[in-house]
Order: sequence, then C-alpha cells, then structure tokens
Amino acid sequence: VKIAIVGGGAVGLLFANYLTKANHHVTIVVRRKEQEQQLRSHGVKLYGHERTEIVEALTFDELQSQTFDLVIITVKQTAIKTVVNTLKMRKLIAKDIMFVQNGMGHIHYMKELLNCFHSCYIGIVEHGAKKLSDFEVHHTGIGKVSLGILHKNHEKIHELANELSFGKFPFEVSHDWEMILKRKLVINAVINPLTALFQVRNGELLHNEHFIGLMRALLFEAVSVLQLPDEEEMWQYVKRICEKTASNHSSMLMDLTNGRETEIEAISGHIIEKAEEQQKNVPFTSFVYESIKGLTSHKR
Amino acid sequence: VKIAIVGGGAVGLLFANYLTKANHHVTIVVRRKEQEQQLRSHGVKLYGHERTEIVEALTFDELQSQTFDLVIITVKQTAIKTVVNTLKMRKLIAKDIMFVQNGMGHIHYMKELLNCFHSCYIGIVEHGAKKLSDFEVHHTGIGKVSLGILHKNHEKIHELANELSFGKFPFEVSHDWEMILKRKLVINAVINPLTALFQVRNGELLHNEHFIGLMRALLFEAVSVLQLPDEEEMWQYVKRICEKTASNHSSMLMDLTNGRETEIEAISGHIIEKAEEQQKNVPFTSFVYESIKGLTSHKR
Repeated sequence: VKIAIVGGGAVGLLFANYLTKANHHVTIVVRRKEQEQQLRSHGVKLYGHERTEIVEALTFDELQSQTFDLVIITVKQTAIKTVVNTLKMRKLIAKDIMFVQNGMGHIHYMKELLNCFHSCYIGIVEHGAKKLSDFEVHHTGIGKVSLGILHKNHEKIHELANELSFGKFPFEVSHDWEMILKRKLVINAVINPLTALFQVRNGELLHNEHFIGLMRALLFEAVSVLQLPDEEEMWQYVKRICEKTASNHSSMLMDLTNGRETEIEAISGHIIEKAEEQQKNVPFTSFVYESIKGLTSHKR
Repeated sequence: VKIAIVGGGAVGLLFANYLTKANHHVTIVVRRKEQEQQLRSHGVKLYGHERTEIVEALTFDELQSQTFDLVIITVKQTAIKTVVNTLKMRKLIAKDIMFVQNGMGHIHYMKELLNCFHSCYIGIVEHGAKKLSDFEVHHTGIGKVSLGILHKNHEKIHELANELSFGKFPFEVSHDWEMILKRKLVINAVINPLTALFQVRNGELLHNEHFIGLMRALLFEAVSVLQLPDEEEMWQYVKRICEKTASNHSSMLMDLTNGRETEIEAISGHIIEKAEEQQKNVPFTSFVYESIKGLTSHKR
C-alpha cells in the first residue's frame, strides 16, 4: 500500500517506522525542510533498535498532485483544518484517509470531508510514544490502534487492519470506536489539564487526596456529559492509566512547558460545548479550560 | 505603652519598627533563638533607612509571667492556636490583645479568648511589607491599620489608635471592621490562590481574559457567600489592588514556592465553610482550595 503520513511528531514517526516494516511504501509529509532532510538521510529510527527504516520525505511545499492509496493524518487536532486545506490546495490524491487525533472535536469536521475519499477511517492510538529527534522515536508503551470506519466501504476495513498490522504495532477493527474515543477523551480530560496545571508527572496525581478529589470531579463532569454508562468503571480505568504512565509527562504539560499550543480545545473545550448543548454545568472542566488557555497565552 | 509583638515576620517587624519610633517599649517574641540574637544585636531596620530601632527580643521559651499593656499577635492564621496556648502556658500577662491576621477564620476563635483580656482588638493591616532578613523589613506599600473592637472598652479605642499612630504608620478606628475584613478576604480569595496556582505576579492576572474570567468567578462566589452588597464595586476594588501590587508575588505564591503552609484554610476554606452553611455551591473556590492543598502536600 502506498501511504502518506502527514506530520512528523511522535505518532507520525511511530506509524512510519512500523508501516515501513510491514512492507508498505511510506512517505512522510512534514512542515520543516530540516526534518525532511534528517528523515531522508537517516530514515526513521526506533529508540533501542539498531535498524532504521528508509522512508521518503516531503515538505508540504513540495506536494504537487501526488497519488497515494492511504493518507494518515497524524498532526495535532489544532492543525487539522490548515493541514487538510493545504492537502486540497496541493491536489494530493488519496483513495482513503485516516485520522488519528485525540479528542472528538474533529469528528464533526471530518464528516465534511467524506465525499472526497473512498473511505474515511479513524484510528485510536493506544501506544505510548516520545519523539527524541526529527527522525527518532521511543516506543514507550506498546498497545494497539483501534480502527473505526466513519464512512463507506465497511467490508474493506478488516483487510486494511490486516495489511497495516506488524508485530508490536497491531491494528484492530472496532465497531465501537465512538465509545473508545469517548473513553480516551475522559482520560485526557482528567489527566492532561491537571498534570499541566500542577506541573506533575501522571502518577503524582494519585499521590494525595486533594488531586484525587479534583480528578473525580473532572471525571464526573466528563462521564455525565458524554453519557458514559459506568462512572466507577471509568474511574478505575483512569487510575490504571495513571499508574501505567506514572513517570510520563503528559503531552499537555510538555506543550505548556515548551510554549506550544495545547489540545485543551479538543479535550475540555469539547466537553464544555457538549455540556452547553445539554444545559449542564461543568465548573471544574471550565476552570481547567480557562487556566490552560490563560497559561498558554501567558507563557510561564 | 509596654507592647509585646508576637511573631517576627514582615508584619511583626514593621509594627516593631514604627511602634518603637512612636516611643513605645517594644518586645518582639519569636520562635528561633537565631532571630532573637539578630534582633538584639541589630535592632529592627527599615529598608532604605539608616537608623535602626532598638527593641527587646525574647523567644517563646524565655517567656515567664512577663507583663505587658498590649500584646499584638502577628503570626500567621495557621499558627494562632498554638501561639495563644503557649502564651497562656507561659503565663504572659497582658491587659489588651490585638490580632492582625488575614482571613476571618480566627474571629470565631478569638471570641473564646475574650474573657482573659480587658479589650480585644482586631487590626486590619493595609500596608505592603516584605521581610528581607531576621531584622530588616521593606515597607513596600504605605497604607494604614484599621482598628476594630471585638469586645469591651469601646471608649479606649480612639486613645489607643492615637497612641500607636506614627507618620507613615497610622491607625484608624473603624466601626465597620467586619466589612473591611470581608473586603480583604475577597481580595485574598481572588488574588492569592490564582497567583499561587499559575505562579505569576499579582499584575499578570489582569493580562489575559482567561485569568480575568477566573477572577470574576471566584469574586462572584466570595461576594455571594459573604453577602457583600455590591459585586461590581468589589470587582473594581480587586482590580485596583492587583494593579497597585502588580509586581508583587502574593504571600500564597511565596509560601507554596518555599514549601511552607499557606493560608488557604483561612481564606478559601472559610468561604467554603460559609457556603456549606448557606447550602450554596462554590465550585471555583473549591477547585483552588483543593489545588493549593494538594500542591502544599506535594511540594513542586
């Protein structure tokens, strides 16, 4: 399969490495000329492994009517709109498209694009990954990618999951992807803003009753707004993830520390939007939302 | 007047300096032997002034049935209970007592003590002061001390205010001290927790709409619970204080940064307690309360 991976962050590099190993022909599309050069000369390297995978690399500016079987969009939620418009302008042609963002805000937006593609997939990444350089990524947590279908071609999805899977990077078809996405959103709505606000590692949230109380308050609001069936089960899940990723700095903490835009809009922003539709109050979610927005424009 | 000032923090040193200048006989009572020695050898110095004021100094351990006309308690809210018990145990004798803490939590406690003294005063300090060393304090903001009476001897208060006032350190009798204290509590409930949580100077809270939104939410809860008459006027007052103290680090931020206990219990804790009595929800106040408590036990 001829694949374009759009975005050279941790997730983009992880996909590029494993999909090349799975014998696909991978092109990474990145913003910076520098990263393109690094990828061309070094390939994509997995931390702890000798071998590098040779990939093609292009910058957005070099796109011009190329044709792919599958385009995988790995850029951040906040960049999707710009990126998709650029791909259109540059006349990139692809049969299928896959989105692998966190949050749920982009679902709505993706639906607008559906007619341009044969199939539109959503990939929910349950791996841990940390970008070490422009061409090297650390696969810190082995999980899977849950594959859901947003539109058309229901029969082809199992074939695709098979084709893309390789060793420690399996794809699994999920008919319940909306539930998976909601559960991931709850995880992010609880862990990300608090770790960013308090500047602590994921595991430290469980170290005192006050942080735990705030987690539960955020959990309650998210579960209620997303209409998930079992709050207690969800709480156990959040705690498990916190323990499993105890020594990690959340992406939101990293973004805030490095003065980058965070994904707060797609996470807490989405919950606030849904709450307004349902005329519910979500004061704790609002507090973290405003705090992270404020700290982003402030840069401490 | 023979005065004992209990506590050698910024407020204690400021009182000691000016009250000595006003020709009173001042003894500072401190916890650490070290500070006692420094005070004995250097006196109390005001930053930017040549002259130092000679004072007596004692540690708590050295108290033994001394007699004073007035005891001024300048220790933090959180230490009051222990300090007052120590004074009792050490048989310190005083006609009158004055408390100059922030917050309102101690009012209730003070009322228990009333029978031991002729008069019990409350002093609301509207000065800026920063402790530079064990014997030096910077008078960063010139204001006044509003003097209220908690109990007995109403006629003597004007005389006392007169006796204590000196130059840039005036005392003013206030019959509305409960209102002044409430207004100060609102200021502290809005500015202190947010600056501590975001690690910003007071003035930076006004730099973006998100922080301002959170200030207003905290203000609304405090004003409602304390039953203050005019929210908009109070908001203008909070903004003025923020601007006047723009470059200051709030005491709560300093306490948190230095791993000390904060006054969150006396500030946001008091509002939460009052809210519960009135069966009101104060989610934003609860959020900052739990955050500061969590960060205190966490020590970032």
